[in-house]
Order: sequence, then C-alpha cells, then structure tokens
Amino acid sequence: MKDLIATSLKYQHGQLLVLDQYQLPHREVWLPCDSVEAMVAMIRKLQIRGAPLIGIGASLLLAHLAEQETGVPALEQAAQTLRESRPTAVNLMNCMDRMLATLHRDGTAALSATAEAIFDEDIELCRRMAEQGAGLIRPGSAILTHCNTGSLATAGVGTAIGVIGEAQRLGKGIHVYVDETRPLLQGGRLTSWEMRRLGVPYTLICDNMAAMLMAQGKIDCVLVGADRIAANGDFANKVGTYSLAVNAHYHGIPFYAVAPYTTVDPQCPDGSAIPIEQRAADEVRGVGGSFGEIVWSPGDAPVYNPAFDVTPAQLVTGWILDTGILTPQQVAEGSLSHLR
Amino acid sequence: MKDLIATSLKYQHGQLLVLDQYQLPHREVWLPCDSVEAMVAMIRKLQIRGAPLIGIGASLLLAHLAEQETGVPALEQAAQTLRESRPTAVNLMNCMDRMLATLHRDGTAALSATAEAIFDEDIELCRRMAEQGAGLIRPGSAILTHCNTGSLATAGVGTAIGVIGEAQRLGKGIHVYVDETRPLLQGGRLTSWEMRRLGVPYTLICDNMAAMLMAQGKIDCVLVGADRIAANGDFANKVGTYSLAVNAHYHGIPFYAVAPYTTVDPQCPDGSAIPIEQRAADEVRGVGGSFGEIVWSPGDAPVYNPAFDVTPAQLVTGWILDTGILTPQQVAEGSLSHLR
Repeated sequence: MKDLIATSLKYQHGQLLVLDQYQLPHREVWLPCDSVEAMVAMIRKLQIRGAPLIGIGASLLLAHLAEQETGVPALEQAAQTLRESRPTAVNLMNCMDRMLATLHRDGTAALSATAEAIFDEDIELCRRMAEQGAGLIRPGSAILTHCNTGSLATAGVGTAIGVIGEAQRLGKGIHVYVDETRPLLQGGRLTSWEMRRLGVPYTLICDNMAAMLMAQGKIDCVLVGADRIAANGDFANKVGTYSLAVNAHYHGIPFYAVAPYTTVDPQCPDGSAIPIEQRAADEVRGVGGSFGEIVWSPGDAPVYNPAFDVTPAQLVTGWILDTGILTPQQVAEGSLSHLR
Repeated sequence: MKDLIATSLKYQHGQLLVLDQYQLPHREVWLPCDSVEAMVAMIRKLQIRGAPLIGIGASLLLAHLAEQETGVPALEQAAQTLRESRPTAVNLMNCMDRMLATLHRDGTAALSATAEAIFDEDIELCRRMAEQGAGLIRPGSAILTHCNTGSLATAGVGTAIGVIGEAQRLGKGIHVYVDETRPLLQGGRLTSWEMRRLGVPYTLICDNMAAMLMAQGKIDCVLVGADRIAANGDFANKVGTYSLAVNAHYHGIPFYAVAPYTTVDPQCPDGSAIPIEQRAADEVRGVGGSFGEIVWSPGDAPVYNPAFDVTPAQLVTGWILDTGILTPQQVAEGSLSHLR
C-alpha cells in the first residue's frame, strides 16, 4: 500500500499509525496498530473516532493484514469483528462491505487499492461538502457545533468542521461556539484543538448553555455531523444533537447535518431502526483521559449512557452532502433513498 | 443563638459549621466559619450553595458576629459584602435586608432571634412546598430534575427535591432522572447523593441526554428550583434549566419551578432584569473537586460560563410555592407581584 497521510491516521513504511485522540489535546502520540484486537480496542476507547475515520482505519488495517498474507477466512472474520466494534455509524459497515466485495471479486491482493481509494475518496468528499456548505454561511455568522467533525473524524478537512474551515478560508469572519460534548468531551478536547489549528475564533461552552445563546440571538446556524442518515432524513449523531435540534427549531435557527454519502443508509427506513450504542456507566459518573480516570458521582450511581441520539428529519433545515444540499422537500420525496 | 441543625449547615456550641459541598459525595467534612471572608470564600467556591441556604448561612453568620460584639457599622459592612458574593439568587439579598431591618429597628442583640426565625421558617417553607407539589405527582411518575435543590440547598427538605422526597414518602413509586449539571456537577455529585439518602430510585444522565429521554416518552414531568422569580413569572435557575424548559415544551411535558416566597422578587419586572453571574473559565475547561483540578481542554480555550439562565414564564406549567401552586393565568394576572 502506498503511504497515506492524514491528520489523525497514516500508513507509512508499511505501518498503520493512529493519533491517540484519548490523549488529545494534551499529548500528540502516534500509536502503531497491526491487529484487529488493537484496532477494536482503539475504536472502543475512541482513540480513533469519527464515523468516516473509523471506517477508513478499519479498511487500511484489513489491507495491511492482507499484505501480511492473512488468508481469506481470517480476513472475513476480521471484517466481521471490526464491523461490530461500534454499531451506530454506518460508514464502518459500508467500508467493510466494500472491502469484502473486493476480496470476493478480486482476491486479497486487490484490498490495498480499495483501501487507498476509500482513503483518497474521503478527502475528496470532505472537500466537496466544505465547498457546498460554505456557500450557506453568511459573513459574520456565529456557528454552533457539537462533538468533533474535523480532521480528527475524517481523512480530510471534516464534515461540519470542514464547512467551518472553508468559511474561514473564504474570509467570512465567522465565530464558532463549541459544545464541550459530554460525556467524552470531543468538543472540549478535540474541536477546540481543531479551531486553534484552523485559526477560527471560538468559544467553548457546556452543552446546556447552547439554548441560552440561542435565546440571546447569538447563534446564526447549527452545523453537526452524522453517524447514520436514514432514508427518510432522520439521523443519528453524538448524544446531545437532538436537544440542539429542538432548541434551534424553537428559536428559528437553521440546523444542518453535514455528511458524505457514505453516511447515508438507504436500507434504514427511519431513525427508529438505527441501533444506538450504550456505553459504560463510568463515562457519566466522571471523566477519563490522559490525566487519569476520575469519578465525581457516587461510585455506584445508576447511569444511562447512550452514545448517540436521533434527530428527526422535521427538525433539519438541510442535509449538506458531498453531492449537494438536500432540502426537506427533496428528502421527503425520497432523494436519500436513491443516492448514488 | 440556640443550636440549629440542618443537613448541610449547623450552629452548635456557639460555632457556625458548614458541610463542605465541594468535597461531596466523597468526603463529608464540616468546616467552621467565623468571618465574612471565610463565608464569602465558601459561597464563591460553592462549599455552601443553594439559593435559600446561602441566605440562611449568611444570616447565621451575621447573628454570630453580633454575639461576638461586632459593632453596627461593621455588621452593615458585613451584610453588604455577603450580599454581593453571588448576584443572581435573591434569597441572599432578602435575608440581608431582613437582618439589617432588625439591626436598625431593634439593635444587635435582636439579630439572633431573626436568624433563628429565618432558619426555622425555611424548614417550614420546604415542608409546605413538598406538600403542595407532591399532590401533582402521579403514581409511577418519572421526574427529571436539574442541579441540586434538596437538603443541601435549604435548611429543610428542599424545593424540587422536597417534592420528590414527599412523593417517595407517600409511596408514589417514582423514578428520578438526575441531570449531572455541568459545569459544577451539582446533580452528579449532590443530587445523586441525596437520592440515595432518600431511597429514591434514580438514573444519572449528562444534561444533553434529557431531550432524548423526553422523545422516548420516559419523562412525565420536570421539577426544578429557582434562584430568582421575577414579577411576571420568568425565573433564573442553574444554567441548563432553559434548555430543559424548551425541550419539555416541545414534548408537551409539564414543567414546574419549585421555590419559597423568599425567591420571588416582585421588584424585578421580568427575566431580563435578573443579573446573571459569570464564573471562571477553568470551570468549563475542566472540573475541580476534592479529587483535584483537571483541565481537559486547551488551557487557553476562550470560554463562556454563565452560572444561570432565565426561563420565560410562557414555558412554565406552574410555580409550586409554599403558599400554593400558581397557574400561568394567575401569574399573568399579577399573583407574584403582591405575594405576601
């Protein structure tokens, strides 16, 4: 496989390397990854994360294993195990399906080219989303975003953050409000890190402060990513997205989901069919990171910890895809069902 | 002054003692408090907190200082300094006004009786709110609450948590969803601790998960406290309350504010006139407690950290006061303007 370099993932000198997002923003540590077990552990711990990026990482690993002369049954088993590591994001499933199709059609030697294509294609999809979305951003806009959707979540410039970066590059004079995104703090830890790298002026807030900013007229639009978009336009994204969508609706603020076509699942009729990953109670009882693991609640506190929630299509102003921006009417007429 | 014993505040053997809420739930440490400087530092650090409780604590301290033969000018200065320690909750201002009125009318020797009356009255106000509110709770209800409003926020059983405790005592078979309440985690650290003490089954969630539970039909009503209620029914409460109110409205879920008459500020025409305390950026960049101080975001991340937000009257189903439950119509007709 050729060398592939992204902000948070690279394949270099025959080695797959992952930027450990668990340690960001305090330390930038690259971890080698050469087995399914290592990749699954990294995905579960969100050392590698973001719907597009985990699909790409898993694909690169499969190609790497094939280059190590792993046989077809072991590769099939690897794809299955990787596929099950996070149930909500559909990009991972799509990538595994595409790699398996190559495997069955062209054999193990063909996997590298497919993995490279997946990597390169994601960069191009990000570029197109950024271009499409930036056209919607009025000069001087204040944009609210949630979780992390940038170069730490894709091989390219990102989805929602891709749009933000492009608006900045075009000199639109934007300001970004960054939801910290409890419980795993992808906003506080990662999006703030990306805003600084992009030179975008930003303000970090707790998730529960977004509504107050909306009431004050301080938010012009909301841009979020997606982990799976159903055929009817409902979509799963990081928990907390739905609350933002309800609040944006109440305050009359445009609310956009930004995602590549690889996030659309035409087989999934609506949001109720999207499986929602439940995660460990200690994530809510406290916080963990390179600074250690802290529990501030009673150690036995009963917890509900869904990693994602579902935003229904009726709360979405537009779906910013690489192929263009879909309106609610286009989505209602079935545009997502026959995408590509 | 006679001995006074509450869950989180006591006056015993001539000493004022505060249960250090900064260290809860991990350690139960009582701290002596014998000066204005000590009390202000404790209030600012939320070692003593809750709109009613800080007013009571400040009153007991003034009475204690008077017993130590502090002169009138020094007591007036003390009241002024205490009054300014937290700007949003009006109970503190009301208590200081009441203590100063006693001082000017009856002299320093009378302050103890007024402080005792404030303490005893709060217990009775809590009892009445609990009784009023419990009548609204249907058997088997799931109640969502935010921040902490119990025996750690008052001298009695609390405001919203007082209602919850009374519903539990009446055998209503309730379940409570506890918002963790970023950034200072009064829900995760304190309300969960109170739920366990009351034997109320509960589930701890991140603030941004509440909307999802509402969409799933898992929340029957929302009960919150208040730091100041304006004459038109708008009220300030811990940041995050407003987002819950918008979400409850969208999902058709009853939303109640629970507070004693001492939280009503008839001089304040509406929510826009309530001063909102802004707090330190590091509270949002990370978390602090008896476990240490942690910053998980970039150490220089720009932050917005209002401690409270304002919920407009039109999102409130009812105001559960010690004097009864006010409807939106009663509030619109001015019932809060001439309360007591």
